[in-house]
Amino acid sequence: MQPFDMTLVQCGARLRRSPFFEAEQRYGPLGYTVYNHTLFPIRYDDLEKEYWHLLNHVTLWDVAVERQVEITGPDAFRFTSMLTPRDLSTCAVGQGKYVLITSPKGGIVNDPVLLRLGENHFWLALADSDVLLYAMGLAAHAGMDVEIGEPDVSPLQIQGPKSKEVVSELFGEAVLDLRYYHFLETELDGIPVVVTRTGWTAEVGYELYLRDGSKGTELWERIMEAGRPHDIRPTGPSDIRRVEAGILNHGCDMTLANNPFEVGLERLVDLDKKEEFMGREALRRIHDQGVARKLVGVEIRSGEQLAFNDRHWPVSHDGAQVGRVTSALWSPRLEKNIGYAWLPADLARQGTELVVATAGGDAPAVVVPMPFVDPSKEIPKA
Amino acid sequence: MQPFDMTLVQCGARLRRSPFFEAEQRYGPLGYTVYNHTLFPIRYDDLEKEYWHLLNHVTLWDVAVERQVEITGPDAFRFTSMLTPRDLSTCAVGQGKYVLITSPKGGIVNDPVLLRLGENHFWLALADSDVLLYAMGLAAHAGMDVEIGEPDVSPLQIQGPKSKEVVSELFGEAVLDLRYYHFLETELDGIPVVVTRTGWTAEVGYELYLRDGSKGTELWERIMEAGRPHDIRPTGPSDIRRVEAGILNHGCDMTLANNPFEVGLERLVDLDKKEEFMGREALRRIHDQGVARKLVGVEIRSGEQLAFNDRHWPVSHDGAQVGRVTSALWSPRLEKNIGYAWLPADLARQGTELVVATAGGDAPAVVVPMPFVDPSKEIPKA
Repeated sequence: MQPFDMTLVQCGARLRRSPFFEAEQRYGPLGYTVYNHTLFPIRYDDLEKEYWHLLNHVTLWDVAVERQVEITGPDAFRFTSMLTPRDLSTCAVGQGKYVLITSPKGGIVNDPVLLRLGENHFWLALADSDVLLYAMGLAAHAGMDVEIGEPDVSPLQIQGPKSKEVVSELFGEAVLDLRYYHFLETELDGIPVVVTRTGWTAEVGYELYLRDGSKGTELWERIMEAGRPHDIRPTGPSDIRRVEAGILNHGCDMTLANNPFEVGLERLVDLDKKEEFMGREALRRIHDQGVARKLVGVEIRSGEQLAFNDRHWPVSHDGAQVGRVTSALWSPRLEKNIGYAWLPADLARQGTELVVATAGGDAPAVVVPMPFVDPSKEIPKA
Repeated sequence: MQPFDMTLVQCGARLRRSPFFEAEQRYGPLGYTVYNHTLFPIRYDDLEKEYWHLLNHVTLWDVAVERQVEITGPDAFRFTSMLTPRDLSTCAVGQGKYVLITSPKGGIVNDPVLLRLGENHFWLALADSDVLLYAMGLAAHAGMDVEIGEPDVSPLQIQGPKSKEVVSELFGEAVLDLRYYHFLETELDGIPVVVTRTGWTAEVGYELYLRDGSKGTELWERIMEAGRPHDIRPTGPSDIRRVEAGILNHGCDMTLANNPFEVGLERLVDLDKKEEFMGREALRRIHDQGVARKLVGVEIRSGEQLAFNDRHWPVSHDGAQVGRVTSALWSPRLEKNIGYAWLPADLARQGTELVVATAGGDAPAVVVPMPFVDPSKEIPKA
């Protein structure tokens, strides 16, 4: 296999490397992007092959780019609550939550998985924006007693139906009792890790948060060894699977310019929660007035299997440009092109007919419900 | 020329594109990195050829990745002053300053060029970190009346001895009167731009800040046309030239973990300036106590021409590891390997002998003064 030429994405030593970087070189990554100032392997094989492997076997992803913000100190609960409209009072120690970090105007700054490691001890596993700087800025005049930093913590994802076998081989049967979004702090022959029942796939999956960056290669190889009987393979994060599940990608499908109500994440907003939080006033106004645009599911009937869009595609209705597609790709098991589109709210109803300017030309499309794959229904996986 | 395969750095449409992206495709970029969530062309040719072209002719760089933070409103001067230890009272409207943005602990958040467009109107042309989020966080509880946002502003650099001919052809002779770090607001056949006498090279150079992203291709082609008689070429930013000049690259040579006194940028700190600023107390303490480590210039006598380091290299002294090299490369006109190293303060004196673990093996090195190329001395350029 041809080694990947790093000079295509790295000029000098500005970008950070994951603790798993050296280990993953043995498996021939075919591309890297950059995420939180860190190199991020995006694939090792054809994207569709990686997708099928995730659905039928088990895959290992280096997502150390999900850098953590750690918040500790006597006011850590109150300060962390200030970052998000989600009510954290129902988040027990040992539990996680998917949260939105919001700006004073209600914009979406980030959408991390939050872990509560103690009454006043939190981690935020970040999408690609500097929440560390946002939190430092907020803390400067907040009058709260907190410490904010980026700890030596680097996640991996183990995703797919055989992930249970792999983690139970590594950590024992107890790990199988973890409920969705719960975690345990443990170790593997002296390698300190947090194991969470989370992932970016809606498949069965786990994340291991390595707490000692010097042990990246050791942990990686232990996982590969435990996974060998189950044909584990390193892959990039599967965009096909996450779009099927209706999972959004911050920076692509939603940005700081969007609010939770526009993207269908109102379940993550508790306008009446007890603690102060950034954007409450703005979000209440938006909630009361309604939104002018929405992100919706679309099926694109182009007559061909669309390659994953590498830029937003214009969307028109009745001959006028009205929005754009943010993510669109071919779902091999649905045998459809699916994706997300930003539309004016009055066109966001199911059944609206659209035209999408795809890379291959104009194609008819229609607004459909999300998620595309209903977790309660069994769909053939091969 | 082989077109660059964008799927090596882009999976989906998460990363933003510069307004100059389409135009630059005609010139065959050979690699892209990511900077401020935006694709950044890093070279079109051999790095040494690009360096010589910069020294002897004129080069055009797409640095739209230097996203702007814009600060306006009645308290904009006071708020912008809060971001930086540099005294902004001496910065006139129409003038710029190279500034450090500091954290409450005195760490270096970013090192932008600041432009003052009005008494209460500022732009910060950013290195790779989300100062927009930091500023939004700071403003939340600061009790000041400011608006903070990211405007539609995208810089280009025109660098090299023939840059004067190119900008005077485009904007007339008046532009040649611009003093270093001064600017003028103008237009080119209806394309609104700000022209500054700045750059990342210590060569003669200008930056054009495009104020209408829909006109990127048009502006690019007008510059290429004006530059044709002078053999203008699109290139990446020249790391060789900026290291010769002692210019630091944020994220590589200095990070949030470092303070201005460690990296020799104390001239950008005015501890006694009138306005409040982030980190004053911490920086005063550091100033009084002195620093424990320093970034210094090194000459690496490896007996070969070093390729630009793609990770930090360990540095040892008397057999013990004491630091690391952040940037190191071959200077073709000095005919030396030069770079920067972090060292304990007591080893930072000129003449200290070191060993650097380069990609090609251990090599002797010595601490030397910076910059490597004295602007007052003429060094042959070919």
